[in-house]
Amino acid sequence: MKVAVLGASGYGSAELIRLLENHPHVEIEALISSSQEGEGLMNVYPHLSHINRTLEKWDVEQLSSRVDAVFFAAPAGVSSQLLPEVVERGLIAIDLAGDFRLTPEEYRVWYGKEPAMNSWISKAVYGLSEWNREEIKTARLLTNPGCYATATLLGLLPLAKAGAIAKGPLIIDGKSGVSGAGRGLQTNRLFSEVEGNLFPYKVAEHQHTPEIEHYLERMGGASHVVTFTPQIVPMSRGILATIYAPVEAGWTTHQLREAVATTYHEHPFIRLCERGRWPRTKDVTGSNFCDLQVKVDERTGMIITAVAIDNLMKGAAGQAVQNLNIIMGWQETMGLKMLPLYP
Amino acid sequence: MKVAVLGASGYGSAELIRLLENHPHVEIEALISSSQEGEGLMNVYPHLSHINRTLEKWDVEQLSSRVDAVFFAAPAGVSSQLLPEVVERGLIAIDLAGDFRLTPEEYRVWYGKEPAMNSWISKAVYGLSEWNREEIKTARLLTNPGCYATATLLGLLPLAKAGAIAKGPLIIDGKSGVSGAGRGLQTNRLFSEVEGNLFPYKVAEHQHTPEIEHYLERMGGASHVVTFTPQIVPMSRGILATIYAPVEAGWTTHQLREAVATTYHEHPFIRLCERGRWPRTKDVTGSNFCDLQVKVDERTGMIITAVAIDNLMKGAAGQAVQNLNIIMGWQETMGLKMLPLYP
Amino acid sequence: MKVAVLGASGYGSAELIRLLENHPHVEIEALISSSQEGEGLMNVYPHLSHINRTLEKWDVEQLSSRVDAVFFAAPAGVSSQLLPEVVERGLIAIDLAGDFRLTPEEYRVWYGKEPAMNSWISKAVYGLSEWNREEIKTARLLTNPGCYATATLLGLLPLAKAGAIAKGPLIIDGKSGVSGAGRGLQTNRLFSEVEGNLFPYKVAEHQHTPEIEHYLERMGGASHVVTFTPQIVPMSRGILATIYAPVEAGWTTHQLREAVATTYHEHPFIRLCERGRWPRTKDVTGSNFCDLQVKVDERTGMIITAVAIDNLMKGAAGQAVQNLNIIMGWQETMGLKMLPLYP
Amino acid sequence: MKVAVLGASGYGSAELIRLLENHPHVEIEALISSSQEGEGLMNVYPHLSHINRTLEKWDVEQLSSRVDAVFFAAPAGVSSQLLPEVVERGLIAIDLAGDFRLTPEEYRVWYGKEPAMNSWISKAVYGLSEWNREEIKTARLLTNPGCYATATLLGLLPLAKAGAIAKGPLIIDGKSGVSGAGRGLQTNRLFSEVEGNLFPYKVAEHQHTPEIEHYLERMGGASHVVTFTPQIVPMSRGILATIYAPVEAGWTTHQLREAVATTYHEHPFIRLCERGRWPRTKDVTGSNFCDLQVKVDERTGMIITAVAIDNLMKGAAGQAVQNLNIIMGWQETMGLKMLPLYP
Repeated sequence: MKVAVLGASGYGSAELIRLLENHPHVEIEALISSSQEGEGLMNVYPHLSHINRTLEKWDVEQLSSRVDAVFFAAPAGVSSQLLPEVVERGLIAIDLAGDFRLTPEEYRVWYGKEPAMNSWISKAVYGLSEWNREEIKTARLLTNPGCYATATLLGLLPLAKAGAIAKGPLIIDGKSGVSGAGRGLQTNRLFSEVEGNLFPYKVAEHQHTPEIEHYLERMGGASHVVTFTPQIVPMSRGILATIYAPVEAGWTTHQLREAVATTYHEHPFIRLCERGRWPRTKDVTGSNFCDLQVKVDERTGMIITAVAIDNLMKGAAGQAVQNLNIIMGWQETMGLKMLPLYP
Repeated sequence: MKVAVLGASGYGSAELIRLLENHPHVEIEALISSSQEGEGLMNVYPHLSHINRTLEKWDVEQLSSRVDAVFFAAPAGVSSQLLPEVVERGLIAIDLAGDFRLTPEEYRVWYGKEPAMNSWISKAVYGLSEWNREEIKTARLLTNPGCYATATLLGLLPLAKAGAIAKGPLIIDGKSGVSGAGRGLQTNRLFSEVEGNLFPYKVAEHQHTPEIEHYLERMGGASHVVTFTPQIVPMSRGILATIYAPVEAGWTTHQLREAVATTYHEHPFIRLCERGRWPRTKDVTGSNFCDLQVKVDERTGMIITAVAIDNLMKGAAGQAVQNLNIIMGWQETMGLKMLPLYP
Repeated sequence: MKVAVLGASGYGSAELIRLLENHPHVEIEALISSSQEGEGLMNVYPHLSHINRTLEKWDVEQLSSRVDAVFFAAPAGVSSQLLPEVVERGLIAIDLAGDFRLTPEEYRVWYGKEPAMNSWISKAVYGLSEWNREEIKTARLLTNPGCYATATLLGLLPLAKAGAIAKGPLIIDGKSGVSGAGRGLQTNRLFSEVEGNLFPYKVAEHQHTPEIEHYLERMGGASHVVTFTPQIVPMSRGILATIYAPVEAGWTTHQLREAVATTYHEHPFIRLCERGRWPRTKDVTGSNFCDLQVKVDERTGMIITAVAIDNLMKGAAGQAVQNLNIIMGWQETMGLKMLPLYP
Repeated sequence: MKVAVLGASGYGSAELIRLLENHPHVEIEALISSSQEGEGLMNVYPHLSHINRTLEKWDVEQLSSRVDAVFFAAPAGVSSQLLPEVVERGLIAIDLAGDFRLTPEEYRVWYGKEPAMNSWISKAVYGLSEWNREEIKTARLLTNPGCYATATLLGLLPLAKAGAIAKGPLIIDGKSGVSGAGRGLQTNRLFSEVEGNLFPYKVAEHQHTPEIEHYLERMGGASHVVTFTPQIVPMSRGILATIYAPVEAGWTTHQLREAVATTYHEHPFIRLCERGRWPRTKDVTGSNFCDLQVKVDERTGMIITAVAIDNLMKGAAGQAVQNLNIIMGWQETMGLKMLPLYP
């Protein structure tokens, strides 16, 4: 199967290249970049200096005869423009941006941009692999979940489904490595500014908030507003979502762990930590694993659940490949069996 | 004024030495270490190689004739044994550990050790400088607040006092640089294990939890149970506490900011960030500043407040020196005027 | 093929497990650890929590019926004791320590320990894969090169062979991430001590010095004493060797680059950087690549060559697996095709 | 004394502000920035949010009535234009850039820019404080040494003066934290690119090379060409220069250490490490100290000397203030007594 990757100068694309180059059934046919068209890949990414390839410009006509699928790994607002004609030509489109995850109204409010056409948004299948497999199998337009949304939903959905979350404040304290902010040049992403630094941003304004609420309701049957604070942590990769919710009467730590364990019993990428051990971002670095733990704070009646993923893997490129595997009917772990890089 | 520092091989002591060496009114007379008695300071701390001094053993008799005050910067359980006889001999004792912050029952539960005698605990003055100045002025046994407790209380107390916190879950998501865990040898503090890593520990079991509840009630007049999750962040210094609480009806972000600004108007170490800007740990590194911000998430009815301090400064040694200044009637900022080290 | 890994609690073994778990022809049959026998792997390495396996004690008798090869990834002094009986039983032994790389006299001087028996040392084949392939093919006792030695020899040998190095000082300035120092508990490997820190150690006393001299002569036909200064850098992985040598009259940068390019033309793991670009450790992280560059400083008549490898990959576990591939007659890159993890 | 700082949005200026704000005899009257004129300091540097001050544009006329001295902390090429008129108006000018350190010919070659007028260059006094104190005392135009040059010259000059360096290759392997590269926006300074990364740049082409050669001859009486390789290290601050030179016959480690110790006997910022201990960048972080060590590798006849400074302190702002102190006849350590920040 031949594929193209659009947005090839970003970190999401670099990670897609890492995965697809070693995928037994996929061949990268084209790398597309509007900002660095004509540039050699090795100049954009010296770690790929042995790959002799040039970034191309976008040409959907010509592309549709060369590839079967396109990964969109560009900033928000690009795929809403370019993706529909890809699907119209019969290709599979996998979008790593947020252009097809929300209703047009939500998108306008939270992204502050013009949304895609609603008819296309309604065609999009949400690619939270473990929770939407049946729909994904037949998707032509797959919208890959946001990194924070992936971590949060994987942690919350088993609890919501089980009916363990009571009414009351639902708090998500998110922490992300700085690669999540992309490769764009900004002072507050310079090494000297990020090293030794930890800070919130977009407090109660992050665009993954409505995504979490939306799919928590759709997939978990639970209607909640969530208070979400994302924070930048001085590391390159990794997301840790620490989630707080009031527990429904009668639920114990043991029962919550059982609910999670049962839910993910046959899902190879989800690892429930042993009791007493908590997820660590480094335990999943470079892999598609999602580590999680849950506990009831009996003193306060709150559920605390923590979820760790690699933001570029399960939070982006890894899950995108996992979804391609599902669409194609391949083994879900194909090309994704690498163990975490440690240390 | 001559002082002694006990626990001289730890990070808290190293920071005390940094401050006291440049304090205009204080002279370090003795550095005491049970584990490294007889060792040269430069071997324990090569960054102090120009200071020719040897670590001494504990000898309260002899010490009482040499110094006027003793800083206890040893692990929990040491000062409960050694500190009373220091005070009995008429010296000032400033304890950076938690031995005198809680009731004996609380201490037994949360620290898992034998507490100090209650008669001594009741003599101790809690050294949250901005909130307890009058009592501190006459203290002989000062118990310096825990690092997480300092950040949390400085953020919560103005809101609690103002009556802005409604009933409901009070969540503290704490993040700390690894120096907070001390200099002891553990695998999970090695560079290769911490770099690129972020993880919770002592979830709902951290010993600063009762300290926060205790003094939030005592000083803020507000009785709450708190759900507290501490987390290790891959940086040496810094604490960020992100705090979530339901807002009392009618309070706006503007009003909360006013309440905070008014409270700290004359306190030189507390900096309320401009609206829209959030605290960053690196903005306070090496200084005694505490940066904070507060906001109401109107969608969810939650207050979000974030507080950044340097755990070794305002969270330990810096506040200890601030308290000594208050006790001695010196200018509160004496020896503490250094600006943050940036970058 | 079934293999055992000894020294299973160290970083070298963790990396071997990462590689061997995904190697198409190899199965890990036993993980052996003297210090943590009986411990579950997931307790030693939580990033491998999905692998249900227990560390075993050393039992050569029983092992010889279960496996075909043993990787020794223990500290110096262990394999000299345990390895010979493995080979005697007909197994393949691959030693990642330095016990079989030097003459007994050299070993005694530079390692300060009792050497292995000379008869065994003389049987050992030096596993610098690109330079010793023919001998490696038939090895039963393979001694894997040291991390600094690998980087240095890969950079120097093409120049030495070409006769481009004149008489005079040969300087190796080595820099290594801290994982190279292992997982043992020492104060100067704690995160708070290593972060923001860079320092030399074992100056002119590092045990890879004689290894470099020894094999530079044996494989490059060039007899030089080398001045070697290793330095710890605040990162987990990666070695950069910056090498200085007087250039033989007449050689230009272009010619040196040609010599290197020709030498490594058919070696897939060696990447000569484009002119003007210099190796960066992060460009090889997690991969078996070796990036290098060379230049003549015309002003001073010195060759400057820089070589980057991942110390745990091409500098240890990666090269060990590469050598196993050569011994077994498999494709040299088998199980080693992963691209670098970036960022 | 009132001073102005030009280039106020860079790291060098931030460090000057840190120092000058706490200097007992100096008051900052103006912060000047061409790129961010009119901006509040707190927006440029949130860590200084308690300082209410606005960046000004350059206006020499008006400035000369307000201040007595100007620190130039702008990129190369600015002070050559602006500084002369400052001196002509009778102010003291301290230049942290390289515009007045080299001959016009050298500058043109190594900086690739138009040099300052030679008449002004010849008026400039080189501010290597420990080696040029007498000239500095009467300087009106002081050119502060480059960061690498400071480290290198402080290490080499005592050996050169003593006659201990033989003819032959003189190698400087320099390593710097990334703050040395400034606050400008470049992809290769982003956190995700620098973390875990170590790489050479400007190999044999760095502009501090002629500065080292120039002043090694002028102050040390030794004419050498030097081979210099700078490298970026994943840390914010700190320089380590590892220097290799052939030893003149008869010199031992002990004698070299004596030569260094004697030279710097009365210089409070220079610390010769105890025998066996090597300089570490973190031991000087935030301070004006320079730590050094020297050794003869008897096997190879090479001197190895290593020097650590904080690039923003002794390598820039710290030495600039030290020089102001000397010019003004104040105590050399005034405002510079802070101990290193550790950890």
